[in-house]
This record gives sequence, structure tokens and C-alpha cells, in this order.
Amino acid sequence: MDYMYGPGRNHLFVPGPVNIPDPVIRAMNRQNEDYRSPAVPALTKTLLEDVKQIFKTTTGTPFLFPTTGTGAWESALTNTLSPGDRIVSFLIGQFSLLWIDQQQRLNFKVDVVESDWGQGADLAVLESKLRQDPSHTIKAICIVHNETATGVTNDLSAVRKLLDAYRHPALLLVDGVSSICALDFRMDEWGVDVALTGSQKALSMPTGLGIVCASPKALEASKTAKSVRVFFDWKDYLKFYKMGTYWPYTPSIQLLYGLRAALDLIFEEGLDNIIKRHTRLGTATRLAVEAWGLKNCTQKPEWFSDTVTAVVVPSYIDSSAIVKHAWKRYNLSLGLGLNKVAGKVFRIGHLGSLNELQLLGCLSGVEMVLKDVGYPVKLGSGVAAATAYLSNSTPLIPSRI
Amino acid sequence: MDYMYGPGRNHLFVPGPVNIPDPVIRAMNRQNEDYRSPAVPALTKTLLEDVKQIFKTTTGTPFLFPTTGTGAWESALTNTLSPGDRIVSFLIGQFSLLWIDQQQRLNFKVDVVESDWGQGADLAVLESKLRQDPSHTIKAICIVHNETATGVTNDLSAVRKLLDAYRHPALLLVDGVSSICALDFRMDEWGVDVALTGSQKALSMPTGLGIVCASPKALEASKTAKSVRVFFDWKDYLKFYKMGTYWPYTPSIQLLYGLRAALDLIFEEGLDNIIKRHTRLGTATRLAVEAWGLKNCTQKPEWFSDTVTAVVVPSYIDSSAIVKHAWKRYNLSLGLGLNKVAGKVFRIGHLGSLNELQLLGCLSGVEMVLKDVGYPVKLGSGVAAATAYLSNSTPLIPSRI
Amino acid sequence: MDYMYGPGRNHLFVPGPVNIPDPVIRAMNRQNEDYRSPAVPALTKTLLEDVKQIFKTTTGTPFLFPTTGTGAWESALTNTLSPGDRIVSFLIGQFSLLWIDQQQRLNFKVDVVESDWGQGADLAVLESKLRQDPSHTIKAICIVHNETATGVTNDLSAVRKLLDAYRHPALLLVDGVSSICALDFRMDEWGVDVALTGSQKALSMPTGLGIVCASPKALEASKTAKSVRVFFDWKDYLKFYKMGTYWPYTPSIQLLYGLRAALDLIFEEGLDNIIKRHTRLGTATRLAVEAWGLKNCTQKPEWFSDTVTAVVVPSYIDSSAIVKHAWKRYNLSLGLGLNKVAGKVFRIGHLGSLNELQLLGCLSGVEMVLKDVGYPVKLGSGVAAATAYLSNSTPLIPSRI
Amino acid sequence: MDYMYGPGRNHLFVPGPVNIPDPVIRAMNRQNEDYRSPAVPALTKTLLEDVKQIFKTTTGTPFLFPTTGTGAWESALTNTLSPGDRIVSFLIGQFSLLWIDQQQRLNFKVDVVESDWGQGADLAVLESKLRQDPSHTIKAICIVHNETATGVTNDLSAVRKLLDAYRHPALLLVDGVSSICALDFRMDEWGVDVALTGSQKALSMPTGLGIVCASPKALEASKTAKSVRVFFDWKDYLKFYKMGTYWPYTPSIQLLYGLRAALDLIFEEGLDNIIKRHTRLGTATRLAVEAWGLKNCTQKPEWFSDTVTAVVVPSYIDSSAIVKHAWKRYNLSLGLGLNKVAGKVFRIGHLGSLNELQLLGCLSGVEMVLKDVGYPVKLGSGVAAATAYLSNSTPLIPSRI
Repeated sequence: MDYMYGPGRNHLFVPGPVNIPDPVIRAMNRQNEDYRSPAVPALTKTLLEDVKQIFKTTTGTPFLFPTTGTGAWESALTNTLSPGDRIVSFLIGQFSLLWIDQQQRLNFKVDVVESDWGQGADLAVLESKLRQDPSHTIKAICIVHNETATGVTNDLSAVRKLLDAYRHPALLLVDGVSSICALDFRMDEWGVDVALTGSQKALSMPTGLGIVCASPKALEASKTAKSVRVFFDWKDYLKFYKMGTYWPYTPSIQLLYGLRAALDLIFEEGLDNIIKRHTRLGTATRLAVEAWGLKNCTQKPEWFSDTVTAVVVPSYIDSSAIVKHAWKRYNLSLGLGLNKVAGKVFRIGHLGSLNELQLLGCLSGVEMVLKDVGYPVKLGSGVAAATAYLSNSTPLIPSRI
Repeated sequence: MDYMYGPGRNHLFVPGPVNIPDPVIRAMNRQNEDYRSPAVPALTKTLLEDVKQIFKTTTGTPFLFPTTGTGAWESALTNTLSPGDRIVSFLIGQFSLLWIDQQQRLNFKVDVVESDWGQGADLAVLESKLRQDPSHTIKAICIVHNETATGVTNDLSAVRKLLDAYRHPALLLVDGVSSICALDFRMDEWGVDVALTGSQKALSMPTGLGIVCASPKALEASKTAKSVRVFFDWKDYLKFYKMGTYWPYTPSIQLLYGLRAALDLIFEEGLDNIIKRHTRLGTATRLAVEAWGLKNCTQKPEWFSDTVTAVVVPSYIDSSAIVKHAWKRYNLSLGLGLNKVAGKVFRIGHLGSLNELQLLGCLSGVEMVLKDVGYPVKLGSGVAAATAYLSNSTPLIPSRI
Repeated sequence: MDYMYGPGRNHLFVPGPVNIPDPVIRAMNRQNEDYRSPAVPALTKTLLEDVKQIFKTTTGTPFLFPTTGTGAWESALTNTLSPGDRIVSFLIGQFSLLWIDQQQRLNFKVDVVESDWGQGADLAVLESKLRQDPSHTIKAICIVHNETATGVTNDLSAVRKLLDAYRHPALLLVDGVSSICALDFRMDEWGVDVALTGSQKALSMPTGLGIVCASPKALEASKTAKSVRVFFDWKDYLKFYKMGTYWPYTPSIQLLYGLRAALDLIFEEGLDNIIKRHTRLGTATRLAVEAWGLKNCTQKPEWFSDTVTAVVVPSYIDSSAIVKHAWKRYNLSLGLGLNKVAGKVFRIGHLGSLNELQLLGCLSGVEMVLKDVGYPVKLGSGVAAATAYLSNSTPLIPSRI
Repeated sequence: MDYMYGPGRNHLFVPGPVNIPDPVIRAMNRQNEDYRSPAVPALTKTLLEDVKQIFKTTTGTPFLFPTTGTGAWESALTNTLSPGDRIVSFLIGQFSLLWIDQQQRLNFKVDVVESDWGQGADLAVLESKLRQDPSHTIKAICIVHNETATGVTNDLSAVRKLLDAYRHPALLLVDGVSSICALDFRMDEWGVDVALTGSQKALSMPTGLGIVCASPKALEASKTAKSVRVFFDWKDYLKFYKMGTYWPYTPSIQLLYGLRAALDLIFEEGLDNIIKRHTRLGTATRLAVEAWGLKNCTQKPEWFSDTVTAVVVPSYIDSSAIVKHAWKRYNLSLGLGLNKVAGKVFRIGHLGSLNELQLLGCLSGVEMVLKDVGYPVKLGSGVAAATAYLSNSTPLIPSRI
């Protein structure tokens, strides 16, 4: 029942959905259960407590919505804001664009701060807006921590510093879809008010959970926010949290057990080790791109993303052909260029459950694909650059020492 | 990693989530995939085509939302109606109550038509409202086909007849969560404009898909409906349908393959045979209840539900104690009484992937539980009544003849 | 890819292979691994240590052969005996018959002690043979603890007492295939020299492990036993045990993890609780048989088996028709009558991962089948008898109290 | 419950057990079944028919023993030969050594023809033995098609030619454990009398099936062969084949469904395409080894194995350290050097479910390991050599064109 089967493994290097570790697949291989029995609330309780750690928060309140990242966005916005509210939002790639589209359709008044695709959020504009807003008409700053379309990581602590500098009370809403659990993210320290991610990203699970975490300030805001919401309403969850039954409607039993297994693996590896692993894999990828003589779509190292690299191809090559060919010949799944960078970049996702040799298999494959589409790559060059770095930086696996 | 494990199988007889057939569990036991490769759209195309059959529609357009039934409700309402629209909605139990709560929170003007819990929708009131609405201020009729809290099945064809009799153009929106794929449901024949169900009900899958099917008239209405919506917006789906990529955001690969397997099993058994099987299981359950000397919460046979039976317990017994005890002693999961009937009824779900002997195991268990909580049941009486019927009505398994 | 699929669960009541608990299926849902890495020996070490508990031995040495019960038999015999050795073996049903056939083909001189099928081992004959063997020409006693074909449990402690009474050094070799981990079995206390079982029986795993446990005396005997053996030779295993790599040839990684999960569940429930559960299920089954007015193939209560009940049908009924019909109409798998009792008995296996309600579903099904084949059963009678007993004897599930 | 978990996938490059394709894992993720119902024989029948194709035989009779390769060896020998029979057997590495050990322990008179480890079978000696045996005292030639310890493939057609040249009736018994379903193997054309393999090798399944295929001549020989055998006796299987129930004892239901899925994948890819893929992966590996400046243990290209490459390390390096380090640091499982070549070679298995990018990940890893242990490898050199070849020779995946 597989569609378009090829021999051996699929090499999954799109920036989500990502590879699921076998223990998580195993944990999800199960029957339905009555979610009103004592077992499911007992399980849920551990999840809500433990999931806070991936946000680095102790004061936040998490919600495990049966939805995707798009739904998590909607939940973050509608629970904290009212129609007509002014928000500042940064447009730096396809996913920030989609979020802004949602913000506008939800009837917020959005100050769109656009950057070139390949650049980070323009914080100078933000500063100027904050400076010119002594009456606090700006209700929220919406920012994508890691723009998956271009491989750009924004500096959230700088945003916080600006807000603090101007003592501006705007809520800080962060899309952490391709960052949380892979990049350094500190909800409490950075004063993030709503952070969110999706299960199919760095948590390395199937799609289906939109995980939203709200600061006390965000919870407070939700009491007066007038945006219409029912399915995504925090209020219903909070009511069931209080009762100890946790679920206003039916959760996926399988995803709950999957999340339990995913968190157990995360804690076994250690969140900081996971972040280091992503730095390692991101660095290795960038070294390979450089060795191939290709450009990173990300324009400055300060924005380099350790979860996804968008590679710019020469103008005589259509990057879609690379993605298509990789899949057809090498069972390698790469990310397409989207919207403004369609045809111009292809993307290597290097997040989630992934190790050095998996990445090197991908990089070897990209080299062959580049050759196949007519780019004069020196075969082995990218792998050589990556291994030179990795052989110095990869630690022993702790359980095997 | 199981919570509160007991020896042998869990006997799952809540009216959802229900038992998943092994081939569906197997089909879902898999890695993530790139949903932008050609394989996932090819798979999706077959699903969208085939899923229409469970709605008995050829003209409807289905949507596979990554959500639950609550989300499917929201999608049905917000895509077809505008704030302030007048709708008629029937309150006959906890789930119709929750839907009405959602309708009100979404700012529709709801004419609530209430019945006693245990009765069906009061169609006389509907008729009177239609009669008094020559100017067509009623924009939609919202009705739960099968009220899961009380085990009441409404007569949808009668609703259609009333609408036709008064040539009333109101949309007919139907919650088929605990009916579709188990009870007789005919979208096209009955002129249903939006029908919806959830994957964890009669489709016998995990929670996670809210399946919504829209008639051409509903699609037309969605073009002018002013309710705010993004995640649940049909428009985004239709745009991606046209492009042939199908997904405006990331679907669950596992649920897609699960749905494929579920549909294959449904077609192998035959939808009409499935409906007959549910009639058989429902009848057997009611015969057992009668033999025990207990009352069905459903007040008239015309409303009897073939997917769930709510059993009224004597006033000296707390039905919650029955549910708790069944789980603690016999690994049997029954449904609680909800809201108005809390403590007064317990529910036996008999929908989805289930056969005669599974049900008889449950009925035997209920007998022991009744005895345990002090009800003077004659042990074996319910099973005797059920088997007397089943041994005459159960067909041979076609693949084994 | 299922053959002859039917709706709902298969009700598996053959006396092996039995139902596998979901956590065991999950644990086995995995990739291959290098069995020469440090991980597999580390896992194996825990298994070899823990598996002794199901034999109730501290001095025995277990072997986990990648084989079936038939292979385990061969391993027990060829490692302890030499061609021409005299052994006493009891023929009481099809499985003891097959073992005797193997003993003869392996060139042992077998004193076959035959009983009627339905009776236990004739220990009077054994006593007389021991009495008449002052020179110890008898090298081994071979006995099936529980004859699966007739539902007869032999009294092993009585065998030990006889051997002790005559100070006879014969080895005591026991087939515990349908007893160990379900019936009371005490390797050390009863002085069993080789005990064996198969993974698909009370351990509730797939077929594939033949588990053999040897006493120190059996190990000593293996040093001089001249039977030809390679694959089944303990010597090769002992050599690898010493090296700490454990495996003379490739084990099934999946079965090792499956055994780990199975043992964990056994220890969680408690071996003595498991034995009590089997007593409960066996008693309930016998009460039902009695209520149906049918005879137990087992001729005396002292031999009643708590893992399998062979039910004698009236002469005008072919028991094979019952088995066939149960499968074709109710998805119920019962055991056929074998050899001498073919057509005369059908068997209900009630061992392994099973609880009360599963059994009651089976018993309800048997009632309908009996009616279908023309036996004048009173529907509900067996279930009534079984539930009357079970409702008094079933304990609460400890994890749920 | 994983032992010694590391982030990301394990890279499994031992020459067995090998990677299992996901569809096979899925097919095996299932409950036990009654193997005496009509379903399991119906399934078995298809397996026995279809498995012949991987042996390229139409006249052979296959047996699916629940055992390992060691058991399959024993079955091949004991069913065709009698104690004292003279056989010629080639010692060229650890696995041929183990088979010879078995042959001797089974009391055959073995003419051991030894070669240097790294060379193929010495056919000149065979020729001389055949020439000097006009009275046909040699009853069988035993040969390992592919010696897994040294990566040496023997020329079976040359053996057949010698036997034919001398019109010698000796049986030709072939260990195809690491060849069948990966290398060119032609049972009928080459007149092989017994061929055998194990499920965990090129069939890419878990360990547990020893698949033995007997020519009509071998079946004839089994009628008079006097070696003692019961578990491994073909006679019992043939008896059950005739009855149409197929199994003299309990098979693993899971492995039967696994084999069905494995064969389906094999036929989808095409056996000849599979052989070509192995040639491609073997060639790529050898090119990498050459680029690293290391020696192949296999002394002449005519013996190069396309399923496993044994790489000779410089004398100042202990090859065990390479294997240990690869596992500890890179989650890479390589094969140890065994016996005579322990410490001197490490092995890269490249058989079964595997594609180009998986192999390149492994080769990249080996490069880093070589550097780590002090070998002056040029990083990227092996991958460059391999990709230069692979980018010219890898076909498009047919289902995706």
C-alpha cells in the first residue's frame, strides 16, 4: 500500500515532516482508548508538565491542540487579540507571509515589516515603530523564529531587548515551528508570550499536534481578547485542566503516547545536546554548500539556520528539477523553493531525529544530483568539507561509552 | 509505557474512540513522508474520491481536516454562514448542546429547539418555524443525526421533506459523527448540505481527521459567508485541489494511509453490510437491556440508535460507579452519562470495528458489573436474549464461505 | 494482505498460538540490529536471568533456541541422552504421541506407558517400572505436563516423589509447552531436569523461541550424551555464554525484545496472579461446559487443565464442523480434535494473554455454534454459570485500584 | 526499552541481519492466528510457490523451517546424507569453517579443501578428487556460494561443469545465505541439489526462517539418507504438503506475512534489478576502498563479492577498534573480522534493502572512523570515487518515472 516505493530507505530531508525515531513509531502503534478513563488524564498530566521543558518555561501554560502549525498560529492570535488590534509582523519568507495572511484574514491591523528573502527580521523598523508608539497602540509583535523557506533564524532576544528598552507592553508571539526543540529557544528568559510548534518538526513525530505555550501575561490577555474562537479557545482547555480531565474534546491517544516517547528521548539525549547536534549538522551542511561553490540563501551568518539550509542554484538551473530528480533517482526528499525563491533555491532540512551519517548520505546525494542537472560540482567535495568538521566535533554516544 | 495496564485486552465500548482494525493500525505504522512529493497527492486523490461513498454522495466535495469533530463543526458553520445568521438547532443531548454552544459563540442567532433528553428532534417545532418563515430568515438547520449522549437517531429524511414541503432554502447541516459509516446516511438523497464525521468514530481510526463534505449549494454559500475562518477555510483547500497538490498545510501521512486502509476494509465488507451489522449489534444490545429489566434512555423505538445505547439505571445506583467498576475489575470501558443524565445512564457504544462475540463479551461484563453494584440482574439473561437473536441473524463471513 | 478478513477481532481460542498483548507487539515492531554489538548481549543477559523465574528455578540454565516446541523437545533429548538409552514416556494424547515418535526416531528405547485419551499419565506403571529397575537402566522419564490435545494436566510432584522413593537417578524431562507460565510449575522443587516451552504459548508471543531450561544434573549429563546434535547443542551456547556474546548463531532481535516485554508484563502481573487467572478462566470454562450438558474429555477433576478444555460432543455431531463453523460465522478460532479424538472433541484454549470478558465472548460464541450445529443448548446457560463464578472470583486490576 | 539508544538511525552495515524494509515491518506487526484455519495454508501455498523464484528453480521443493542458517545447513545435510558418507567441502573462511565443523559433528567423512582466507574454493583440488573417484565414493560437494567472512564469491557454474565433465553423481549442496536474492544464483541451471538461505540476509527480514530448497534428486536421496533427524526432516513437511495443511508444527504467523511482503517487494523491484543493484553497491564500495588506499581481503576480482566487502587494515591498526568506534561515535554497525582475520579486517555488508545514499552515508562514516583511529585517509576520497561511479550507473526508480 506504499505509493511509489523505491528500494531502501527514503532519505527525508525536507524541513518537516521529519524522520520519526523508531521508539516513537513503536509507542504510537496502538489501539484507541477511552480518554475519559483515569489513564489518559494521568498520562496527559505528565505531558503538560514535561512539555514545558522544550519551551524552557516554568511559568507557561501549554496546550496540545489536535491541529497543525497553521492551527497553532490561529490559536495564538485569536486567544490574545481582538479584531482591529494593531500588530507588527515581519515578512521574510513564505511562512511568515502565510502567517501574515492569516493575521489579516483574522481582521487584525498588521504593520508588515518586509525584508529581502534571505534576510532576518528588520529590527530597526521595529525599533522605530516602538519609539513612535508611546500610547501602545501596538498590541503584539509576531515573529517567526526560524523562517523555514529561507533558512533564516531571527534574534528573539534582541526583540525582547527592544520591547524592554521602550517598556512596551506588546505581546511577543513567536512561531517556533522549525526552531523549538532544535534551536536555542528560551521562552521565559526572552519574555515570549505565546510560543508554538508542530509535532512533525523538531519533536520528530507525525503531524497532528499544534503545541502552544502561553505566558501568564498571554493567559491574562485571553480573558479580554474578543476574537471569535471555539475549537482553538484556551478557555475550554483551562476549564478541563481544572477538572483534571484535561480534554474538551477527543485527543489522539496515539499522539499522546507518541509525545510521551518523544519527550523521553529528548530528555535522554538532553535538550542542550540536541541543540548542539543541530548546530553540528547545520554547520556541516553549510560547509558542504560552500565547498560546492554554491550560495546560501541566508545573507548573513548571524541569521544562519541550524535546522534548514536554502541553497541558491545558478540561474541556468531550475531548483525544482533538483528536487524532482533527487526523489526520482536517489529516493532523496529535498525541500522546494517556495514563492519568491521558487526555482531559485532548494532546501536541505536538517532537523529532528537525524545524525551525522544520515546527513552525509544526503550530501552525497545532493552532489550526484547537482552533477546530474549539469552543475560542475566536484564530487566528494561537500562530503570532504563536512566530514573534516564532523570528525572533529561529533561526540561519542553517551549510552555507549 | 502503558498507563494502568491490565491482563488481556481492553474491551472498548465507549461510543468513540472505537476499536481500530489491525490492518489500519498496520497501515499507520510508518515514517513521515514529504507531502509535496508526487506520492502523497496521488494517494490523497484516491481518498477524496473514495470517501464520498461513505457519505453516499456523488456531487459533494470532501475535506479532510487535521482536526476533531469539534473542528469539523466549526468548519461546517463558518464556511456557510455569516455572523448574525439565524439558524434552527435541536437540543436533545450533550453533543447537540455543545454544538449549539459553538453556534452561539460563533455569533449566529440560534433558535434552540429543545426536547427531553431521550427524545429526538422536535420536528413539529421545525415545521412551525418553517411555516412562519416565508421570507427565509432561517439560513440553516443544524441537526445531530445521532445524539451520542442519549442514543437517539434523528430522522433526516423527514427534515428534508419539511424543507421541501415549504420550499425553504435553508442549508441542512448535519453532524454525522456517530452515524456516518454505521447508520443509513444519504447525503445526496436527503439533500444534506454539509455532513461531517470524525475519524475515531465509525471509520475506526485514531482521532485526527475531521471529515467534512459539502454539497454544491454549500460550496456556493461559502463564497459569500462572512464568518472569519482561516484554518478551517474550504477556500484554501479548493485552491490546492485545483493545483493538484491538495494540502494547504501539512497533513498527517499516517492518517492518510490509515484512511486508505479503513476505506479498503469498508469497501471489502460493503457499506450496506456494515449498516446491517450495526443494526444487528444495536438490536442485540437492546434485547439484552430489556432482559436485564432496565430502561433504554431513548424513549421511542423510532429513535433507537444502532451505534450507542444509553441504559438508564435505577435511582439507587450511580451509573458512574458502573463505568468505574467495569474498568477497574473487567477492563471494560463503558460510556459515562453526561450532563443532565450524569449518574443516571451508562452507555454502551457498539459502533465501528466490532463483531458479535466482542459485543457479547461486553454484555457478559455488564451483567457482572450490574450484579457487583447491587442490581438484581439474572446473570446470563442479557446474553441469552442477545444470542437468541444473533444466532438467527448473523451471516457467514463472505471471505470464508 | 490479510487472508480471509472478517469484521472486528478474531477471537483466538486455540491452545496456541495465543493472543499477544499489545505491548509485546509494539516491542517487536522494530528493525534488525547487529547482534554482535554490546547492546544485544546486554539485553540477552537480562533475559537469561529473568526467564528462570517462569521456570521457578535458581539453579537451572536456560537456552533460547530459535525454534519451536518440537525443536525444544529435540534439544532436551539429544543433549542428555545417547542412542539406545531406555526412557519411560507417557502416551496420553496427540502431543505426547508426537514426542514419543521423536524419541523413537532419535533411536532411544522407549517404554511407552499408554493411558486412555482423557486420562493422565499412569504413574502406577511408572512405579512398577522403577521398582523393577534396581540397576537403573531407565535413563529418563519423559512427561508432558499438560497434554494440549485432551486438556489433561499431569501431577509432576508425584513423579518426583516416585523417583525419590526409589532413589532412581533417571532424568526428569518435562514438556511444559502448554503449562509453563500458566500452570503451577516448579522446576527446582520438583527436581525437573529439563523443562521446556515455546514462545507462542503462555508467554503470549509469536512462535519462534523454544525455551529450554536445564538443571545442573542435566548439564552434567550433556557432557557425556552421545546423541548427534549441532544446531540444538547446549555446548555451543555455553561456550558463547562464557564469552559474554551469548549467541552461537543469529538470534531474532525482534523476539528478544518481545521476550523482554513479555517478561516485564509477567512480572508486573505477578506469576502467581497469572496462575490464579488461569485457574479462574479454566474453572469458568468447565462450568460452562457442564451447564451446556456436555462432557469434558478429561476424565477426572485431578487432571483438569486450566489452559485448555477439550469438550466432547454428542456422537451425532462432528466436532470439526463446530470449529469450521465458529470461524466462518463468528470469527472464533477453536481447536480441532486431533487423531483419536478427531471429530469427537473441540478444544477451547484459555491460556496466555486473556481476561474474563474475552473468555465470555468465546463462550457466548460456542453456545451459538452449538445451536447452529443442532445441539439443543440453552442459550445463555454457559455464560450464566461462568459469570456466577467469575463475578465472585475476579479481583480488581491492581494498577487501577 | 531500546538498549544503548543513540540519536537518529542506526546505520546497519553488518552482512546480516540487514535492514528490513518498512512494508515488511508493517506486515509483521500483527497478532497470532490459528495456523490450522484455512487462511494460513492458503497463504503458505502462495509462499511456497513464489519463493522458488528467488532460487531460480521450477523443479525444486522449498521448505520454510523456523530456524536460522545453521539449522538450514543441518537440514540440507541430514536429509540427503548418511553417517560416514564422504563429502568434499571447501574451507575458505569462518562460515565455511563452521559448516565443516557441523559436517564433521554429524559424522560425515569430510575432505576439507582449504584455501587462503581471501581466496575462493580451490576447484583444481576438486577436479583432482573427482578424477580419482571413478567409483563415486564422494556423495556430496558442499560449498558456500558467498563466504561472508572474507567477501569471496565462488563460481558455482564451474563446480557444476566439473561434476558434469566427470559425470559424477555427487550431490551439490550450496550455502546461499549471503548470496541468494542478492547475487546471481541459478539453482536449476547450475544443477544445485540443495540450496539454502536465511530470512535475515538478502530477503531483508528478521531472523527466523531457514529456507531450504531441494532438487528432485535431493528429494530422492532423502528417502534413503540415514542421518538421524526429526525437527529438520523434510519427510514430515512433505506429508503435510500433501494434506494441504503444510505445517508439521507451529510456524510464525508474523514471519509468513513478512515473507509475503518481502516477496512482493522483490517481485516489484525485479530479481534481476536487485542483482544489478547489489553489483552497483558492491562496485561502489570497492572503489571507495581503493580510493582510501586500503586492500580488499578478496585476492582476485573474479571472487569479489557484491554483498560484503572485507577491508584489510594496516597492521598498526586493530580492525576491532574500527568496528567499536564506528558504533560508539557514529551509530554505524560494521562487521568484525572473524577468526583468522580477526583484528585484520573489518567488513561492510551491502546486501538486502539498501540504496545508494545509505551506502554513501556508511562510506562517509568509515572515512571518519579511519581518520579517528589514525589512518591517514583523505576525507571525501572514497565517497568521491563511489559517487563518480554511482552517478553514472544508478537508474531512475521505475515507479517514479
